[in-house]
Order: sequence, then C-alpha cells, then structure tokens
Amino acid sequence: MVIPGGIDANTNLHAPQKGLSPADDFYQGTRAALCGGTTTIMDHMLVEPGTSLLSAFDQWKESAEKMACCDFSLHLDITRWHEGLYEELETLVKDKGVNSFLFFMAYKDKYQSSDSQLYEAFSVLRDLGAVAQVHAENGDIIDEEEKKLLSLGIFGPEGHVLSHPEEVETEAVYRAVTIAKQANCPLYVTKVMSKSAADVIARSRKKGVVVYGEPITASLATDGSHYWSKDWATAAAFVMSPPLNPDPTTPQYLTSLLACGDLQVTSSAHASFSTAQRAVGKDDFTLIPEGTSGIEERMSVVWDRAVCTGKMDENKFVAVTSTNAAKLFNIYPRKGRVAVGSDADIVIWNPKETHTVSAKTHNLTVEVNILEGLEFRGVASVVISGGCIAVEDGKLNATEGSGRYIPRKSFPDTVYKRIRARSKMAEARGVPRGNYDGPVHDVISVTKSIPSTPTSRGPPCPKTQSGPRNLHQSGFTLAGAQIDDHIPRRSAQRIVAPPGGRSNITSLS
Amino acid sequence: MVIPGGIDANTNLHAPQKGLSPADDFYQGTRAALCGGTTTIMDHMLVEPGTSLLSAFDQWKESAEKMACCDFSLHLDITRWHEGLYEELETLVKDKGVNSFLFFMAYKDKYQSSDSQLYEAFSVLRDLGAVAQVHAENGDIIDEEEKKLLSLGIFGPEGHVLSHPEEVETEAVYRAVTIAKQANCPLYVTKVMSKSAADVIARSRKKGVVVYGEPITASLATDGSHYWSKDWATAAAFVMSPPLNPDPTTPQYLTSLLACGDLQVTSSAHASFSTAQRAVGKDDFTLIPEGTSGIEERMSVVWDRAVCTGKMDENKFVAVTSTNAAKLFNIYPRKGRVAVGSDADIVIWNPKETHTVSAKTHNLTVEVNILEGLEFRGVASVVISGGCIAVEDGKLNATEGSGRYIPRKSFPDTVYKRIRARSKMAEARGVPRGNYDGPVHDVISVTKSIPSTPTSRGPPCPKTQSGPRNLHQSGFTLAGAQIDDHIPRRSAQRIVAPPGGRSNITSLS
Amino acid sequence: MVIPGGIDANTNLHAPQKGLSPADDFYQGTRAALCGGTTTIMDHMLVEPGTSLLSAFDQWKESAEKMACCDFSLHLDITRWHEGLYEELETLVKDKGVNSFLFFMAYKDKYQSSDSQLYEAFSVLRDLGAVAQVHAENGDIIDEEEKKLLSLGIFGPEGHVLSHPEEVETEAVYRAVTIAKQANCPLYVTKVMSKSAADVIARSRKKGVVVYGEPITASLATDGSHYWSKDWATAAAFVMSPPLNPDPTTPQYLTSLLACGDLQVTSSAHASFSTAQRAVGKDDFTLIPEGTSGIEERMSVVWDRAVCTGKMDENKFVAVTSTNAAKLFNIYPRKGRVAVGSDADIVIWNPKETHTVSAKTHNLTVEVNILEGLEFRGVASVVISGGCIAVEDGKLNATEGSGRYIPRKSFPDTVYKRIRARSKMAEARGVPRGNYDGPVHDVISVTKSIPSTPTSRGPPCPKTQSGPRNLHQSGFTLAGAQIDDHIPRRSAQRIVAPPGGRSNITSLS
Amino acid sequence: MVIPGGIDANTNLHAPQKGLSPADDFYQGTRAALCGGTTTIMDHMLVEPGTSLLSAFDQWKESAEKMACCDFSLHLDITRWHEGLYEELETLVKDKGVNSFLFFMAYKDKYQSSDSQLYEAFSVLRDLGAVAQVHAENGDIIDEEEKKLLSLGIFGPEGHVLSHPEEVETEAVYRAVTIAKQANCPLYVTKVMSKSAADVIARSRKKGVVVYGEPITASLATDGSHYWSKDWATAAAFVMSPPLNPDPTTPQYLTSLLACGDLQVTSSAHASFSTAQRAVGKDDFTLIPEGTSGIEERMSVVWDRAVCTGKMDENKFVAVTSTNAAKLFNIYPRKGRVAVGSDADIVIWNPKETHTVSAKTHNLTVEVNILEGLEFRGVASVVISGGCIAVEDGKLNATEGSGRYIPRKSFPDTVYKRIRARSKMAEARGVPRGNYDGPVHDVISVTKSIPSTPTSRGPPCPKTQSGPRNLHQSGFTLAGAQIDDHIPRRSAQRIVAPPGGRSNITSLS
Repeated sequence: MVIPGGIDANTNLHAPQKGLSPADDFYQGTRAALCGGTTTIMDHMLVEPGTSLLSAFDQWKESAEKMACCDFSLHLDITRWHEGLYEELETLVKDKGVNSFLFFMAYKDKYQSSDSQLYEAFSVLRDLGAVAQVHAENGDIIDEEEKKLLSLGIFGPEGHVLSHPEEVETEAVYRAVTIAKQANCPLYVTKVMSKSAADVIARSRKKGVVVYGEPITASLATDGSHYWSKDWATAAAFVMSPPLNPDPTTPQYLTSLLACGDLQVTSSAHASFSTAQRAVGKDDFTLIPEGTSGIEERMSVVWDRAVCTGKMDENKFVAVTSTNAAKLFNIYPRKGRVAVGSDADIVIWNPKETHTVSAKTHNLTVEVNILEGLEFRGVASVVISGGCIAVEDGKLNATEGSGRYIPRKSFPDTVYKRIRARSKMAEARGVPRGNYDGPVHDVISVTKSIPSTPTSRGPPCPKTQSGPRNLHQSGFTLAGAQIDDHIPRRSAQRIVAPPGGRSNITSLS
Repeated sequence: MVIPGGIDANTNLHAPQKGLSPADDFYQGTRAALCGGTTTIMDHMLVEPGTSLLSAFDQWKESAEKMACCDFSLHLDITRWHEGLYEELETLVKDKGVNSFLFFMAYKDKYQSSDSQLYEAFSVLRDLGAVAQVHAENGDIIDEEEKKLLSLGIFGPEGHVLSHPEEVETEAVYRAVTIAKQANCPLYVTKVMSKSAADVIARSRKKGVVVYGEPITASLATDGSHYWSKDWATAAAFVMSPPLNPDPTTPQYLTSLLACGDLQVTSSAHASFSTAQRAVGKDDFTLIPEGTSGIEERMSVVWDRAVCTGKMDENKFVAVTSTNAAKLFNIYPRKGRVAVGSDADIVIWNPKETHTVSAKTHNLTVEVNILEGLEFRGVASVVISGGCIAVEDGKLNATEGSGRYIPRKSFPDTVYKRIRARSKMAEARGVPRGNYDGPVHDVISVTKSIPSTPTSRGPPCPKTQSGPRNLHQSGFTLAGAQIDDHIPRRSAQRIVAPPGGRSNITSLS
Repeated sequence: MVIPGGIDANTNLHAPQKGLSPADDFYQGTRAALCGGTTTIMDHMLVEPGTSLLSAFDQWKESAEKMACCDFSLHLDITRWHEGLYEELETLVKDKGVNSFLFFMAYKDKYQSSDSQLYEAFSVLRDLGAVAQVHAENGDIIDEEEKKLLSLGIFGPEGHVLSHPEEVETEAVYRAVTIAKQANCPLYVTKVMSKSAADVIARSRKKGVVVYGEPITASLATDGSHYWSKDWATAAAFVMSPPLNPDPTTPQYLTSLLACGDLQVTSSAHASFSTAQRAVGKDDFTLIPEGTSGIEERMSVVWDRAVCTGKMDENKFVAVTSTNAAKLFNIYPRKGRVAVGSDADIVIWNPKETHTVSAKTHNLTVEVNILEGLEFRGVASVVISGGCIAVEDGKLNATEGSGRYIPRKSFPDTVYKRIRARSKMAEARGVPRGNYDGPVHDVISVTKSIPSTPTSRGPPCPKTQSGPRNLHQSGFTLAGAQIDDHIPRRSAQRIVAPPGGRSNITSLS
Repeated sequence: MVIPGGIDANTNLHAPQKGLSPADDFYQGTRAALCGGTTTIMDHMLVEPGTSLLSAFDQWKESAEKMACCDFSLHLDITRWHEGLYEELETLVKDKGVNSFLFFMAYKDKYQSSDSQLYEAFSVLRDLGAVAQVHAENGDIIDEEEKKLLSLGIFGPEGHVLSHPEEVETEAVYRAVTIAKQANCPLYVTKVMSKSAADVIARSRKKGVVVYGEPITASLATDGSHYWSKDWATAAAFVMSPPLNPDPTTPQYLTSLLACGDLQVTSSAHASFSTAQRAVGKDDFTLIPEGTSGIEERMSVVWDRAVCTGKMDENKFVAVTSTNAAKLFNIYPRKGRVAVGSDADIVIWNPKETHTVSAKTHNLTVEVNILEGLEFRGVASVVISGGCIAVEDGKLNATEGSGRYIPRKSFPDTVYKRIRARSKMAEARGVPRGNYDGPVHDVISVTKSIPSTPTSRGPPCPKTQSGPRNLHQSGFTLAGAQIDDHIPRRSAQRIVAPPGGRSNITSLS
C-alpha cells in the first residue's frame, strides 16, 4: 500500500525543559520518525520570556538544518504575550514561514497566559492568518494541587497525575475554545488526553467553531495507570502534561473520535528525557522533565487501533497521520499527498506485518519506552524521504542534515475560508433607536463603598467613574465621530430633569 | 393549599451599583416579596475592596432591621480575596450567622477573583463550614467584548447581551465547579441563565460534585430577545449579568431541570433600578446598572411554568421555592417547613387564581416590569409572616422594621455530610517505592533560555532551579517529618554533585 | 440512626421460571429481607398467557400470607395483552389493591408485547390510575443473537451476556419511554442495568416524562465480568435479564444517578435458583433460569456505595431504599416513614458496622452469592417489623405467615398529579380552516402495485382504499358528532377530473 | 468554481402512493435536478408486497431510460421481507447493479418490517455486500396516534405532525442502528429530520457503528411550523414522513452536523404530488400522499446554509452533495469527481449569484414549493451532464431519455472495508470450561402456569421445554457437527449423578 509520508505535527526535539536538553535531538528524533513512516516533523520552538522570537527561530532552524534527517517545519511557543511582539510575529508569518503559535494556559508564573492575553493574541493571529495552538490546562489549579500533594508527602510520579485531574484539562479546552470563538481565530488544541476534553472539542465543532484536536501516540495507545508503577523510572517515563488519563477506556474513545472526524490530527508530542534526567525530580514530581516518546510508533498505533478494528479505513488513516496536518498548516499538496509535483515523501505500508515495541530495539537513546511490549499491526516497510530511500528491509539509511526547512504560508484555505465566512456573518449591528430623552439619574460617588442608610442619603457627588471605564472612553476617542457626541453631553451634566421637557438632561458615562 | 412561606435566597435590596442605590430598598423589596408569598429573603452584602467585612455586616444588618417587613438573612460578596480576610471571615461564620460567601469571576479589575484566589478561598470556606457562591462569568472575555462592541459603535442594551455570550457563563460555571471539586468545598451557582450552564451543573452533580444551581424568576419566565427592543427603557430594564439568554427555549429547559432536581433553588436575584438610574448608561451599555425584578412574581412563575405544566408536583414546588434554600443555608426547620416549632411563616396558596403582571400594579417603585403583560396561574391569597397576617384578600399589611435577622450556623448537614464523606474518600496516598538509586542528571542553568546548538555545548552550570520551586521546598520544610526522609535520600545520591561543581555529570540530550 | 424499614419494590419469590420454582420462597426470602433491614416487599405475580389474573392474585396472596415473615404487596406481570383483560384489571385495581402492572418487551413468542399492545395497555392503565412497569429489552434482537451464538457453539453463561448487548436494553427503554409519553401513562422501568439505559431515563425526565428507574442490588454492587468465570456455577449465578453489564464503571455510575435523583428506587429483583436448577441450562445458556440474589444486601450496598462515598446523605438513603417506593406505589405514609400512624416498621441502622457477604452466612438457601467476599459498611442492627422485633444482635426472630398483604390504591398522588396536569396541557387542537374547495384527484387503484409507465396508464379503478383506513373510519363513527361534519364535506366534492372517465371518483376521507 | 455534478441519492419520481403517481416523473424531476446542478439521481423503487423484485426493476429501469434527462441509479424498497426474496436479491446485487435496499419501520400492516425481519434482512445484505437503508419511524405508535387524533376530530395536516412526534423517529433510528450493529451490516438512514435522530446517528458513529445519515433539502431549509398554516394546500404540501420538525432550530443543527461530518449525504427525498392529489386527504390527513420537493434547490440550500455561514468549506460542500454518495453507493470515481476517466458531469458554480425560490418559476409541475420566497446564495450557472451542456445562462437544454442507468457494484470499499475489519474483531468465543458435573434439577412441567404452593409440590414432570427452544434445536441441526454432541447429552437425561443422593435429578437438554 503506497501512502504519503507521515507528518508528525508536534515534536519537541530541541526545546530544553528545566535546563535539560531533550535526550533525543533532531538527529535521533528524525531517524526514529523515518523508521515509523514519518517524513516531515513540525517542531515546537519554546521561546523563554524575554527572548527574541526571531533569534530563536534562527537558532532552531540552524540546528535542525544541521541535524534533521527529514524535512521539518516549526511552530513557535509564546511564553509571555505582550503587544510588543507584534512586529516579530508579523515577520515570522510573512517572511519566515511560521504560521502557528502556541500559548500555555498552564505553568503558572512561568509561561501561563491570562484569558485577556489569549484573546488579544488570538485577535492578532487571526489578522495575520495564523493558527493559534494551546497547551490546555488550568495552571492555577495545578499549582494549588501540587502544593497540596507535596505537603501531604506525595513526591512520586503519581503526584503528577493527581495534581492534573481530568477536569483541569477539560476546563481549559472549553475556555480556549470560547476565547477562540469570540476572537474568530482558528484553534488547534495540542495533546488531547481525556475523553471529556475531546468531547468539548467535538461539541464545539458541532456548533461551528473552527477548532481542531490532536490526540497523540501516547493517548491513543496507553493510559495513566502506569503512574502508580512500583518502578520509579517506569512511572517517571509517563510524566507529561496533560497527563495520560487513568481511565483505561480513554484510548479507544479517542481513537473513535479520531475515526469519525471529531479529532483530526495524530501527532506524537515527542519529548524524550533519559531516566537520569527525569531523576532530577526523584524526590519531587514537579521537577521531572515532561514528555513521552511516540515519534516512531505513531503511525502503527493508528493503524492497529483504528484501521484493524474497523473504526476507519485506509483513506482516513492517511488523513489523520498526514494529509490533515498538511492542510491545516498549509503545506498541502507539497506534503500529505502522493502526486506529481508533491515532494517525494512516500511510504510503502505493510498492513500484515506486526512489530513489538521495546526500548531495546527502538531508534531512540532513552532507556524506557512507554509502549514496551505492546504489539502493533502495520509497519512502514519502505520509506522514501525527499526522493531518497531512508528505510528498506528494516534498515535505516538516514543522512544527518538532509532535512529541509518547510516554510508555511499564512491563511491556509482549509482553515481560513470558514473563518472569513464567519467573519462576514458575525458582524454585530446595533439596534436603531431614537435618543433616550427621559430623566437620567445622578451618579453617586463610589469613593465610599458602603451604601449609606436611608437617613444619611446625602447630595449626589457628580464624580466620574474610575478605572475600567477609561478603556471604553479611549475606545470612544478612537471611534472619532463619537467624541463630539460625548463631550457636550458631559458638559451638561449638572442639572437633572427639570419640569417641562427634560431637555438638557445629561448622562454621566 | 397551605405551604411554608417562600424563601428568596438571592436579593440585592441594599447594594449600590456604580454609585447608585437600588430603587427598591429593604422596605419596598420585602413588601413586594410578601405579596408574592415570600416571607424570608437572603440579601447580598456587597463589600467593596478594602472595606471591613464586619462593618459592612453591621451596616447591612442595621439597615435591614430598620426597614425590612419580613425576616432576612445575609450572604457576603467578597470583591477582593486575600488571606488577611480570614479573621473577619471566621468571626462572621462563628459569631454573626453568615455562612455563605459569594465570589465574582467577572467584573475585571474591579471585583474579579483569579482561579488561585478562588481555590484558596474555597479551601478556607470548607474548613469554616460555609457555602461558596459564585457569580459565574468570564470577566476577561467580557471586558474584551465590551471594548470591541463599543469600538464598533454599539452602545445600546443589545451590546450587553452581545458582550456576554452564553459560553462566557458556561465556561465560568465549569471552571468554578472544577475548583470547588478540587477544594472539596460546596458550591452554589447563583443566577443560572442558560441551558448549557445548567447542563454543566447537572453533569457535575452526576459525577458527585456538591454543587447547586439557582435559576431565577427572570430566567424561568422570559428570555433575552428583549435586549433588541426598540424602546430603550424596556431593553435597559433587562440588563443583568449573566444576561437573559436569547434562546427562547431557555425558560422551559431551566424549568425542567428544576423539576427533575438538577437545579435546586429558585430565587429572584432582585435588583431594581429606575429608568433614570439605568439611563446613566444611555450612551454606553456598560454603564447601565444591572439587575432585574422578580421578587414578587417568583413563586407564581414556578407554579405556572412547572406545576401547571405537569413538570413538578406541589411538594417539589415547596422544595424549590422554600425548603431547599432553608436546608442548604441551614435555617431548616425554622424556615421552609410548616410544623410545630417552626417560625409562623405560612402561605395559603390559591392554585386557581391568576394574576397578570404589570408595572402599574406591582408593589415596586420601578417603572418597568420585565414580565409586563404575562399572566401566571397561582397566587398567594393569604401570607402570614412571623405570626402576623401580612397579606389577605389582596391587601398588604406590612410593617417596616418587623423583619428579624436570621443567623445561620455553619456546616449545614444537607451540604456538609457529603463533603465530610468525600473528604475521607479523597485522601491521596503516595505509592510506596524503594528509593531511586540510579544516576541523576545535572540541572543546566536556565539563565540562557535558548538551548545551545550541539557545537556550543558548554560545561554544565550547577545552579539550582529557581522561583516556583521554592514554594514546594518550603512545603517540604513545613511538613516536618518529611525533612528527615528527604535528606537521607538526597545524601544517598552516590555520584551526583560532589562538592566543587558537580563536575562530571553531563547532560545527555 | 432510626430509619423507616426498607421497601424492596421488586422481588420474585414465587414465580416459576421454565417450570422451576425459586429456591428462596416467601419464607426464606422475607427472612433474608428482614436481616438486611427490609420490612416490606413487593412481589411480582407472573401470570402465564391464558391464565386468569384474578386466580393468580388469589393464589399468590394465599401463598404469601401463609409464608411471608414481613408485609408484602403485589405487582402483576402481564404476559399476553388483549382487551379482554380489562375487566379483571379493573377489579384488581379497584377491589384488590394492585396498582402496578409489568409488561415484557423481551421473551419473544412467549411473553413479549408489541408496541401497539403496550400503547393500548398503557392507555388503559392511565385511565385506571395504575403504574406501568416494563422489562425493557428488545426480544427480537435477543432471539436472533441467541440463535447465532448457539450456532457458533457458545453454550456457556457468557453467551447470555453476549446475546443481550447493552443497546438491546437501552433501545427498549427509549421505546417504552416514548410509548408512555405518548399515552401519558406513568412508567417504571425495572432493573436498570446499564449506563446508557439510565441515561435515557435521566434525559427523558429532563424533558418532563413521568418515568422512574430502578437500579438493583446487583447492578449497584457488581458487574458482568463474572459471566466469563471459569467456574460454571459462579458464572451461571449471574444470569439475569437485562444482564449485569461488563463495563466495570457501571455500578458507580448508576449509584451517582441514584444519588442525584435521576434514578429513584433501589430494589433487589431477587430471584434465586439453586445451582442444580441453573444446571438445567448447563449445555445451553438460554435454558438457565434467570435472576440474582440481593434481597438481603440491598440496603447495605446503597449505604456503602452511595452514603460512605459522599454521593448522598442519610435522607436520600431513606428515600431510595424506602420512601420513594412507598410514594410511587401509594402506600405512603403507612410505609416509608417513621411517624405516628405509620406502620411500626423501623430499623436501627449502624453506619459503622461492616459486613462481609458470603454464601456460607447469608440467609438464603442458594449455594452461591454473587457478592461473595465483598465487604459493605452499614448494617441493620435492630429491625422491627409490624411492631415486633425481628432482628436484634444479629439474631433473626421471624414468624412464618406474620406478613400482611398491603393493598395499594390507584392514582398515587406523587405520580398522577403530574399526569393530570400533563393531560390538560396536551389537549391537541386542530387548525380552524375553511373547507378546501379546490380540485381533488382521483385515487388510482392499488391492486396493481407496480405503477404503469406513462404510455400504459390505464383507466382508473375507482376502488376504495383498503385495510388500515377502516380503523379510522370506525374511529369516526365512534366519535359521533364528527359524522355530520364529515358527510357534508363529502357531499361537497363537486367535480374531480372529468374528462376521460375519472368522473365519478370521489375522495375517501 | 468547477465542481463535480451533484448526486441526489434519494428521489421518488416513479413510485405511486396510495394509488397516485407522482406529479413530477422522471422527465420533470430530472429537468429540475439539472437546473439545480444535480447530474445523477438515485431513485427508490417501491415494490408492493407480493410483487416480483426483478420485474419491478425492469419496469423502473425501462421508464427511467425513456424519460430521464440525467443519469440514474436505483435503490429498492422492500415492503415485505421473507427468506424467499433471497434469490431475487442476489440477482439484483450481482447482475443488475442494485446494491442498496430500503426497509420500512413504519406503515403498519402495510410495509412495516419487524425487528426480527430487519435483523434477518440485514444479515443477508451484509453477506451480499449491499447497504441497508431504513425509513425510520415507529409505525405502531404512529398508527395509535393517528387513530387518537382522528377520533379527537383533527383532520388537517397538523394531524400529520402531531401523530409523528419526534421521539417516534428517534426511537426507530436507535433501534435500526442497534440491529445493524448486531448484524454488522452498514446502515444508511434516509431522511434525517430531527435533532435527536441526528444525535443518535452521531453518537453511534462515535462508538464505531457503520451508519450514515441523510438530511434532506427540506430538513436543512425549513421547519414544521407550516403544518399549522391556515391555507390547507400550503400545509398539505409539507406532509412527508418523518415530518418536518416544528423546532425552528432544527435546520441549523442538521446543517452543523452535516458540516462536521456526523451526517454525510444531502439528498432531496423528492416526491411531489399536486394539490389536487394531496386533496384526496382533505378530510383525513392520513390520506394525503407524502413527500416534499427539493430536487432543484438541494445544492443551493447547502451552499447558502453551510458554506456562506462558515460551517463548511467548498471541499466539504462537494463531499456532501456529490462525492460521499458516490463513494457509499460505489459509483466513485465514475461519479462524484472531476477527473480524467470520470463521467463528464460537471457544474460551474457561481457562489455570488442568488436565487429566490418560487412555485411560479421552479421547474416542477406542482403548484406549491415549500421554500416559496426563500432566497439562497449559490447557483449552478453551467451544468454539463454526460458531456452535453444541459444548463447555460439559465437556459435548460435537457433531452428526454438521455440519462443512462448507472449500475453499482456490491461491497463498496468505503463501507465494507470497515465492515470486514469489524467482522474479524467481533468473533465471539466461548469460555473454555470443564464440564459441569454437579447436580442438575428436574424441570417441572410448565403446562400448569401457576406455581403450586409448597404443600402441593408434586412429582417432577420430565417433559421437554416447548416453543422457543425448537428454533435453537433446528439451529443445531443445521450446524451439522453439533448434532452428535447434542444427542448423547439428551439421551443421558434420565439419570445424572446417581450415587449418594442426587438420584432423581435429571438434566434436560
């Protein structure tokens, strides 16, 4: 069976965590990717607060060009949003081929964006034609839970999943979707790990929101029971956020939603750290670097769990492992398709072969594989990447630095045609009314916050409202014409409703 | 039909808004309440940030005792949470009879609490045996929407509902429920206005969360289409938050959920402002004081919409208009029951009489009634309040200041028996494991946020993690016994970090 | 803790299955009931097709009066509905104190009622003021599945659950609810065994349907994994219909729905058969007599699973184990309440004691207990039945034949107040329109079922419509007054398609 | 915009109803289809009970070949299932190119199939590689409701929708899906008319069932409020089954589900009858011939409601109006695609043009159009059918009889790849157990249906079970090998476990 090479839309082969670089870098990671049938990766650039986005881009691109064995594209993770980023964002989108940006709703006091920041950022991205991504978890609650668990003396990896209960993910997904809907910005939820989070995405799509969900190798293939493993290194290898869900029916459920179109893209969210690296958190689960492997097994997992079970057919398999990502992130038909003119990234898939996962045989440096011992049907028997045979007869023939950077244009059709149509639909219009010409009450000062009792009702204090109103007033200013409407009314503010015509009644705003 | 006097668990008869005192105060409001069959109200004390909670309590209680014509109890609305409030809270709960506290998730930069604040506050309330209440709306999103709409030139009351889309309520309810569940604190969601918000409550209850939902007169009887009224004063009279929902099937849906037990308490959330007061926002909907009437029609609305339609029987009617509130807020069986030993608050309900609502005949001072012209079956023909006949033959005989303050004890059984049981169940336990004794990686400094490329891998910088970890470390310290457990494990790290720079540890990546 | 004696609303202590009488009869069964805190049972009279309902009643009542150690009431299971039953039904309801009747949607060719029969029967019951009950499973599908499995060589008890997939229960519940809603008859679904079936009930209640759901001891305490037990006798002991669900999360889910009011009554559906009796089906699972034990453990299961976990409080415990059944079946407040004037059926409940279930110690004759080895908190330490101490200090002191028959009146308020209100609401009204006076087409005969091609369109055959129309015509006739309305309209059909022979064709109404 | 010609997968251009031939036949109907951009139709052959399927096929094909102006394919509607149809079915599937068969769950005593019949038929279709279709409504309930309404004096078209409440459709869909899942047969639900029915399909798909849903022009564009029109002819024009739903939010909801993939195919279910024809039921709504128009407006409705609103993009538009039907019914890529080798059925779609529907201008003979006055964006400006220009500049140039019959092969890949995978997964296996060798009880005769009281327990009657068992026994017989297993067990039935007390226990089967 000939299929287009897989696209892994979420890898973390270069981003350090807690000062630790990933155990599998662009070289190791892309070798493993090729073995599994993936010929393009999209790596996340994590830009620490205060760092230039553009220099991060240069640094990431340079590293990948030196080391990657297959083509790559780049997402940018924004860890501190402020308006000053606009210029760099614009350059990245228009000149550098980056059209997707991730925001964190977790990692309080470190990377976490507030709802206001998300709203503003999403509005900017929409105007630039980019796709917003979120790491969806409620960082405030996690922070409290972590403190509580540590104070209860729970230090092991089970503390990780206990401090990240399912609702914390689901809540954040719902919130992100709501913000994206209001800002009319396309949203891509990375790492969908629980049934209820997936349900939120599915329900939102039914209401017409332009939102996409990404289950990953780990959430499709295994569950969170392993956090209670008696072996610390095993338990620690599963630490990632949002965590694997303890409900053992999760993988089948997410697979079903992927099959019926409620979720769209399968990635790996690969981020591997050695046991020694994870052991930095051996006495405090909050210090364990996060991430699971899966770059190599991704396509086999989908084949085994979804195609062999009759949940999806081969066409859908290609869509969720390759084509959909290509379309969403605007590299289709260069990628995600077998056709004249497309890149020569082709896989010959053998549906009958099976493969048993083991850390002893996988193409990674880490000592633990979270899918150890699991057997999957479906193997990439030949992998052609960029026109060269990278895998054949189980032999890997990858060349360091052979991967090219794949720039992505803004305004992907698949996403933005609907956004544009929605934009036209959504134009709010006010109700045409005659001017209200009845009496208007004085505004009593709010400097004294406790209301006076009836006997003490004093004369009205004609002070203006403070604080939040200024925003709106500046809004008025910007709107031009309203300024004149506004000022005269204000100057008239002294008298209130004299008998005989209410003519010079004033509002206070 | 003899029933216990109604309890309106949510009134705002004294709290000013934007410097404006309500048009219907304790005197007017309780007169209207009595006419509708309500003999006890629970009023919200809104305490502006920086004001003493206790002085607010004194002030509120004094006013109500002077003016109220029926018994009253008090909720306290906390507009700025900080740990310094603990002492006052404790006094209020233990000595003053206040066992319920409301928090705002909206009104950004003014009253809004963050998720972390809610978590902390809920934990305190749980220990004090109080009930947490929330005004559930996402203030960040509302703030952005208001700015956007004003900049688009939309100034009328329709802007209010446009800037408060349904998801903004639903999102906040889901978030509040999640926090309450994690903190194991009982939660009472005031003003349930939309189908999806009610669904969140219903689903959470099915999962066992101790959460209660309060639809109000307005959300059971009418909808949000009126915001588009051509008459400004009419449209403005509907301004409240969360807004009435434009979906016309909302009232029936909420009524059904009330009938089948998914929602529990019907209140009015009464807050009335005259047209002149509302006209303060005639040119900017964000300045309109918020709140709708309903204190008088509350019980008739439930009778007409739920009992006459076969959705609930008389027993359930009594429960949702009186008994449930009494139990939740711990004044049962003094209130909410007709029995020897209970207060003599008794209503003779006439199911056959009908009543048509009109601003011309209602017992309020405001010029507009949002239920104008609607006819409801079911009328309180005789109302006995505190042993005195307050209403008979349509005549009101209320005495200003006859209402007594009803203190409420902490730890209501209805609520806290389940909280205690859940508390026992929820005790997290760590996994007993032997000490991890494998290699532990150095932590590379995070001062340089961009990872070095392979060629520039420098010597490891043996600095410790900063910032957020300190919290947990102090957590360790506080936990006492764990200190000893902790140190030996650390000292058992054989290789790692010898004095003088941990030199031979290397990162792996 | 003093509580009213439990009411087990579903027992099968006397009904034979496949010619086998239950191993635990009225004597054994009620002894076990008392030990568990249950002081009233409602037993199902299974009346084989063709047998007189009244003689069955006499026979059942006589047996129970001789043998039962606690009070009892009786449901009647109708295995073949026809209009001829009306007279006996009326006598049972009006004179004999039976106000609930069960229908089978399964047991094809044996007991199964068609949808038409259910509709008719429900309409009759509604007029009599009775409660309809259903055994909800799709018998057609089960029949096909059984044939298929047997033909595949699957003969063991696992075949029972494989031939009764969850959807078969859920489907039938949805269908029964739909019929009950249309007939406006109260419906009580016995033996709710799966999450999706419970969901259907919950959702229907939200839409206002008067429907009640009954989870049972077995479905609250265990699951269907045991059908795959390697021990035939163990596996066979779980055979009941609908079967225990293999999904292990089912018990918690049903418990939660019971706690939040979506399900209302907990019974045991007790029907016990010895291993030797079940072994009649040792080579063919369809021959195993069906039913599980649970009459003794019922209340402890609810206490342990719902109260101890914080899902419900003590009041709700009393409701779902006693009061709700008393109200629904109209023996409240004689039963289900501790009060002056109520029967002296009182239990002293010890929440702290625990009890481990075992076939060695249970008060039944059967050799297997499906809850073997499970430990439950909550024990009835003293049981007073009919004023006599039946259990004290773990000692049972029951007297054969001391139980009295408890007749039940029709039109229970809890149920029928809403039915009556709905009846008033539901009155359909036609649209007043002037008479249609346009042309009316000929009706072509349908005797030739394949339509002629244009060229072969032959002369019209002026025959009237056959079959189903007659029903409606008789409907017209019965409706009396409409006849006159009808005839003139008919005579007014002036013309109709004159040229070419269709002239004297008339419409049929 | 160039798109493949539309495929209307559900038309009724030739099937008579109640003896009346459709007002728009193959000629008129396909002309209208072409005007709307549809170049292929799939017409339903309705075969009256007792008629030869093959002769119906011949008759239908001949008529269409004479009259149709565009290509056509044929579904067969089976009105009375029995095993004797097998041979004809096989011929139709293997030799005649018919791979889809519809069954009726409504039209009691006329066309309605029982659940057992559906199960058997679906099993046959699965083996033949065909697609099962259902008209999903509960005929038993409808029949009762019709009788009730007529007896209440409701004769107008509003009676049609009152007698077909939403649950009646939803119930049947759930039942059909359950049967299809159990029989592992692909199911296509025609005419999805309500939100809850669509939800059932969506939820089933999430669970992996191979089921497809077909909303139609009418259900996407209008609602059931028109049944209450004061104009009889207007109201009557909406009569179809399942009826248009009175809930006005239905069209948007169905459109959203179509957009997100929960529903897959848009057809018209076109069946038009003139007002005179409908007037046959002017005094009895049950006599009105059923069906609505929509063959012409189908594609514009989807464009306007789904693409212009941002719910779907152009690719999805092509999928739901053409490609999906082609794939499901196995005429892809001949149809449903613009490519070399595909048929030259091509449409140039003008997204900017708008069109207002009116009976005065539509290309049908009927006097009423249910979409009268509605304006839709999106018009087929050029239509090429079979290589000839059929529509250009608003001019229709269709040739009677130019349409060709499009045969369809069995086992469409899109459908059957998943069915085959599921078939492998679903193989049930029995639990290997040793033979049960304990005691086996006698079976008491069931000839006397009332159980004897204890004192009368007579000697056991070793008779065999009757009735339902025979089916299984014959199943055994057919299964060949089992006969020998079976007989010896049976012959052993007298004794069983004699020594030591179990003496008179006998086994039965």
